[in-house]
Amino acid sequence: MRIVITGGGGFLGQRLARRLAREGRIGDQPVTELTLFDIVAPPPPDAPFPVRSVAGDVADLPANAMPMGTDIVFHLAAVVSAAAEADYDLGRRVNLRGTDAVVDSCRRLTRPPRVVFTSSVASFSAAPDEVIGPATRQVPANSYGAQKAAAELILADATRRGFLDAVTLRLPTVSIRPGRPNKAASSFVSSILREPLGGEEAELPVADDFRLWITSPAHATDWLLHAATLDTAAMGPDRSVNPPGLTVSVGEMLAALEAAKPGAAALVRRVAAPEIQAIVATWPARFDPARALALGFAAHGPLEALVAEFLAETRGAA
Amino acid sequence: MRIVITGGGGFLGQRLARRLAREGRIGDQPVTELTLFDIVAPPPPDAPFPVRSVAGDVADLPANAMPMGTDIVFHLAAVVSAAAEADYDLGRRVNLRGTDAVVDSCRRLTRPPRVVFTSSVASFSAAPDEVIGPATRQVPANSYGAQKAAAELILADATRRGFLDAVTLRLPTVSIRPGRPNKAASSFVSSILREPLGGEEAELPVADDFRLWITSPAHATDWLLHAATLDTAAMGPDRSVNPPGLTVSVGEMLAALEAAKPGAAALVRRVAAPEIQAIVATWPARFDPARALALGFAAHGPLEALVAEFLAETRGAA
Repeated sequence: MRIVITGGGGFLGQRLARRLAREGRIGDQPVTELTLFDIVAPPPPDAPFPVRSVAGDVADLPANAMPMGTDIVFHLAAVVSAAAEADYDLGRRVNLRGTDAVVDSCRRLTRPPRVVFTSSVASFSAAPDEVIGPATRQVPANSYGAQKAAAELILADATRRGFLDAVTLRLPTVSIRPGRPNKAASSFVSSILREPLGGEEAELPVADDFRLWITSPAHATDWLLHAATLDTAAMGPDRSVNPPGLTVSVGEMLAALEAAKPGAAALVRRVAAPEIQAIVATWPARFDPARALALGFAAHGPLEALVAEFLAETRGAA
Repeated sequence: MRIVITGGGGFLGQRLARRLAREGRIGDQPVTELTLFDIVAPPPPDAPFPVRSVAGDVADLPANAMPMGTDIVFHLAAVVSAAAEADYDLGRRVNLRGTDAVVDSCRRLTRPPRVVFTSSVASFSAAPDEVIGPATRQVPANSYGAQKAAAELILADATRRGFLDAVTLRLPTVSIRPGRPNKAASSFVSSILREPLGGEEAELPVADDFRLWITSPAHATDWLLHAATLDTAAMGPDRSVNPPGLTVSVGEMLAALEAAKPGAAALVRRVAAPEIQAIVATWPARFDPARALALGFAAHGPLEALVAEFLAETRGAA
């Protein structure tokens, strides 16, 4: 299988590339080539198959970013929530024009590839206790979410037309991301666990009873790989999936932190950040997972497993 | 009030322009200037205020199409359903890039104008008896509908950001349009009344029990004018409205035709047109009008009034 990852230099793109390199296969097929595309050439993993790194502008996707014979495209390139809110033109260019460019590149291939697209919980807005189902309308309350929801429509239509074969995953907030805070409004959802586990302070811009819909990096990667290989005939015209994430409160996250490392929760400082709060306050935290489970997306483990996954990976890396 | 109409040379644009010219006011305000924009310079109506005609590409909107001080933009420019299905690039350029260009022109104004946008019943797909409500998710089954639904998201987000103040009307199929058939998949919905009323044959590509959601041209114009002046505070973040259209079966339309002109229904010939049927079969026909009525959109009259409106206008024009 010839695989392309846009946003291949990003956190999920790199993680996915390393996983493909380690396993050498996707589903029951060998990987024969991997192309990593990003604004700067992404570092290639050591792999048993050729890995090409291509740099460029996703809105003006170079021809060599989508080689003839491409079977699977992971379209992960995006301008994240707080960044798209701060720069409307940049968000529109990457999140919308970039998706159009992926569609156009797919149209030049001789057969339609599977396109796995990452949309987001941020494409919804909901009252705190509303349960989001497959038929829930997306009324985004931020530009990132609006651009993602629009891109979902474009990819579903491109699927119907036979240009490609899309599966959109509306990812929960991914936690615990390794590394440093990023420009996502949800950056604190990783920081409040990651920094105290490393002995550092973290800032918490929401209340303890604030609920979130989250997933671990390993689960998100599992879902991306499943989306790349599942039989889409069962999806019908609706190519978007709310995967079976985990609903947790900030208080539960802090309790899991304290259980994993006694004293760590004291490193979390409450701060006022109205611009962050305004974005994340509208994101739903409760989802009906029935359709995703029926499509074969793996159910999520408990919060403790998510913390343990991070600690094991951090130790493995050290 | 300074008013701009994109698609000002089209059927609804021209109708709206003549109505503004005749009344000289919009809501309780005098019209001080009207700009009609289209791909060729639209014919200006005789009006008690200056009318400017501007030609150009909506996706590359010229600066003089949106004068400083514009208060209201009717964004009607579109590539219609069957045409957008036949030419993906053209549909995307006009229906999506054109909307982005309107957003960008509004951003250059010193205060955000009201933007009245026409989306469509074609942005939904539904089982035959499903009732569409304000919270129903749009799962379009044609490129025109997908592009309109994506443009709704873009305009709602631009509203939230303060670039403009959008009201989207998801128009029912407009019937009876005067003139000749156009490239809309729904063109037959006017033809099967208009042609027989004029003594000509018409083609019917769907069954007699096929249900449609329709509106007369006069009602559509009333709604556009109401959308231009209503207090949007009551709308909240959801800037899209399903106006209170009329649900009718083709059989009821033919009975109304026969009642208005005995013998006319015999001029309607059943034809096979699978490409038309494939598009219109997914359009819902039943809508819950409660939100639209609460927002002040006028309820629709009966089918007989719709036929009478056409006959009176045709006689008036002759």
